[in-house]
Amino acid sequence: MSYYQKLEQHARKLSRLDHLSAICGWDQSAMMPSGGAEARSEAMAELAVIAHELSTADYLADWFEEAEKEQLSDAELISLAALKRQWMMHNILPAELVEQKSLLGSQCEHAWRTQREENDWEGFKQNLAPVVKLARQEAAIRSKATGLSLYDALLDLYEPGMTSEILDGIFADVKSWLPQLIQDVQKKQKNEAILPLTGTFPIAEQSALSLDVMKLLNFDFNHGRLDISTHPFCGGVSTDVRITTRYDETDFTSALMGVIHETGHARYEQGLPHQWRDLPVGQARSMGIHESQSLFFEMQLSRNIDFAKKLAPLAQKTFSRETDSALTAENLNIINNRVKPGFIRVDADEVTYPAHVILRYEIERDLIEGNIEVDDIPEIWDKKMQAYLGIDTKDNFKDGCMQDIHWTDGSFGYFPSYTLGAMYAAQFMAAMKKVVDIEATITSGDLSPIFTWLETNIWSKGCTLSTDELVKQATGETLNPCFFKLHLMARYNQ
Amino acid sequence: MSYYQKLEQHARKLSRLDHLSAICGWDQSAMMPSGGAEARSEAMAELAVIAHELSTADYLADWFEEAEKEQLSDAELISLAALKRQWMMHNILPAELVEQKSLLGSQCEHAWRTQREENDWEGFKQNLAPVVKLARQEAAIRSKATGLSLYDALLDLYEPGMTSEILDGIFADVKSWLPQLIQDVQKKQKNEAILPLTGTFPIAEQSALSLDVMKLLNFDFNHGRLDISTHPFCGGVSTDVRITTRYDETDFTSALMGVIHETGHARYEQGLPHQWRDLPVGQARSMGIHESQSLFFEMQLSRNIDFAKKLAPLAQKTFSRETDSALTAENLNIINNRVKPGFIRVDADEVTYPAHVILRYEIERDLIEGNIEVDDIPEIWDKKMQAYLGIDTKDNFKDGCMQDIHWTDGSFGYFPSYTLGAMYAAQFMAAMKKVVDIEATITSGDLSPIFTWLETNIWSKGCTLSTDELVKQATGETLNPCFFKLHLMARYNQ
Repeated sequence: MSYYQKLEQHARKLSRLDHLSAICGWDQSAMMPSGGAEARSEAMAELAVIAHELSTADYLADWFEEAEKEQLSDAELISLAALKRQWMMHNILPAELVEQKSLLGSQCEHAWRTQREENDWEGFKQNLAPVVKLARQEAAIRSKATGLSLYDALLDLYEPGMTSEILDGIFADVKSWLPQLIQDVQKKQKNEAILPLTGTFPIAEQSALSLDVMKLLNFDFNHGRLDISTHPFCGGVSTDVRITTRYDETDFTSALMGVIHETGHARYEQGLPHQWRDLPVGQARSMGIHESQSLFFEMQLSRNIDFAKKLAPLAQKTFSRETDSALTAENLNIINNRVKPGFIRVDADEVTYPAHVILRYEIERDLIEGNIEVDDIPEIWDKKMQAYLGIDTKDNFKDGCMQDIHWTDGSFGYFPSYTLGAMYAAQFMAAMKKVVDIEATITSGDLSPIFTWLETNIWSKGCTLSTDELVKQATGETLNPCFFKLHLMARYNQ
Repeated sequence: MSYYQKLEQHARKLSRLDHLSAICGWDQSAMMPSGGAEARSEAMAELAVIAHELSTADYLADWFEEAEKEQLSDAELISLAALKRQWMMHNILPAELVEQKSLLGSQCEHAWRTQREENDWEGFKQNLAPVVKLARQEAAIRSKATGLSLYDALLDLYEPGMTSEILDGIFADVKSWLPQLIQDVQKKQKNEAILPLTGTFPIAEQSALSLDVMKLLNFDFNHGRLDISTHPFCGGVSTDVRITTRYDETDFTSALMGVIHETGHARYEQGLPHQWRDLPVGQARSMGIHESQSLFFEMQLSRNIDFAKKLAPLAQKTFSRETDSALTAENLNIINNRVKPGFIRVDADEVTYPAHVILRYEIERDLIEGNIEVDDIPEIWDKKMQAYLGIDTKDNFKDGCMQDIHWTDGSFGYFPSYTLGAMYAAQFMAAMKKVVDIEATITSGDLSPIFTWLETNIWSKGCTLSTDELVKQATGETLNPCFFKLHLMARYNQ
């Protein structure tokens, strides 16, 4: 067996442990009664220890050295690079730092769950400060190894190839037109007649509707399922993708749009190249590209009138409300495209969402680069919320800088992926429109031409191309944020 | 850290891997879409390899040697003995035999699934023969190590302390009265008026009824749940017990009795001593004792008129059939106690069930001892079915000697546990009746005195006592099969 093959075998082993962790993690969120939590955490931690030991085994350095001398095919060379990147990610940090990060991160996150409820910034910042300190240490180590700046070295974990220099340029542009657009759209929508949803939408019926819409989106039920959890997510493994949602009996659109979003994530996973299933090269390209698929499904595909015309009859039939005028395609589309600045990122519409992301990006970048300290966060948060969204968050930490889980466990560098995803999604749609008649395809009820484009250009590529190369091959150019702006302008300001 | 503590730590580690395996195994049966099967098998196999490496690690022999020299408390000594038994179980067989057994076992089982459908004994026996050969090798090795006879060395895996000498005596007695009893009961029941269930019992309502009955049986929903699977089972872990059932829309009693049975298994698991949760000493005593709990719930507790009086109103209400005379307590009790010899063990009532078990026991004992060969099985099966149940299985392999999964993967020695369980259950009930007024307790609707007795005498003991000692402390004597006979006579022949 060649060293490259040994590395492949090793990666498959790790991937199988990830499989167990993913399924048990899904179970924890979607199935497990709370009394099972303690023993489950212990079991998951044990598995993590075993996986960590495997990932950092001494012999791997030699194996990589030997493998790099071997005669490998082009595909194997790409795979080897992906294997090596994964190995370095795992091995670059000293064990003590990994342990500290995990420990302080879970302590901070655990306390945050009650501190947030209690608007307790003073308590929270005591826990956040050491997490930031460790993240800076991590950034320093990763920066040294990669030659990237401190923040970029963390960003690179989620968006390989992306830098704060690029982001600064993109976001500066967005900031130049977004606040005005938000004002304009609100003014325009004020005159739009909207019929609110009334009465109850039973969970069993919402669930049936969700499954119908997943079928319309060609979700492969032989390789996945839909369940309920408090915080919706897409989990499991690519051969068995588990998506979840939560139902609000007064508003079926919230769960439904969530299901469509997660279905986008799921179809990406289901469409990854099976021949590399257990290898890094067969995984999703990046967090931003993953988000581009969920946002393609949710924002590009579903929140428009053509899709609403498919959705409305399904909803009317499922809820036995054929004569409810709130459930017409036109009214559902108005509901689905409502723009309203708010405190909470996860509740934001697609127009205001980038403002939430840019604000967080600017703060976490400066925090990691050492330009600001934890103590400075609330004031900066208030100022930026005021500037970008015209919203006052003074002393409202709960709905302000304490609302997200990301920073609590040290996941700095993740936030930009959300807006990068929205931008990639818009760019993919623009490229797709050149070869697929989207309106006619949606109207026909057979959406497969749309998915075939995504499968061919995105899903089946796995991690074989850099993000830039992937996007260039798919759309003719690397990331171009103007498609996102054009999309928002076309949908909301015409 | 003492060597005993090191062994404890090691056992906890193994137990945590078992946890993941149990949850993913449950998922496989109750949740996983079929397309996820291949990757799941690979992941489970990987975990099994890791667990096997841990269980057979070289250093353990030294640790046991050192631990046995340490000053340990009585509780620790008992725990150490249980740890050592588990270790020996895992280490006694050469790796090659374990591998062969696993390989040939899964091949035989896999082929059996179609061969059984096709009544293909000729094909099946080709696969069964090597499985039997390996089982004989295993028996020889275990026999040498334990000093037990060949068959007893396998029986010991499931029923430590039980021997074929004891079983021969017990079963000879049963055979002396059971065939006649079966005849008598059938004759008697022929004159009983029985109203068959009619119409449809929707699954959602059956599920609601199951949950209600589980509540009546004090199932702890904070540490477990009920789901659906093709083959009902009790799985998961003691802090999170997963039971399953399958629903027949024309007959709610089948799923309901199944749920009650699995609830018995589940409450045993939920009631195991938590301080020893991850240690062998904290596990269930034996397969027979486990079955005694499920059969206590199903046969002793539920298939009687007092319980039927609690059940009937629940069923009537759940199915909105307050006036359906098939759903009276009296009629449900008649349905639940119907005796009818049949081909299939898993469908058998409690009177004919022992005949199925004795037949299998006699065959597998002679097979392992080398007194008969695989080729002889069908003829012996036919003869014994005729003698014990008056049923003709000639050339009907499908519903005869090919109906069970146990032998396909080499699990010889398991069958006696079913009837031992029924006997222990009857003995426990007889002892309990001396201190608990069963009828009044059931009638009151608060069944906790019954469960407190079981918890105190059985569940909380875990594996700290031998089966004989456990039963003696609980009932005043070791296994006495006369309680089972008395139970059957009282219920069916008065």
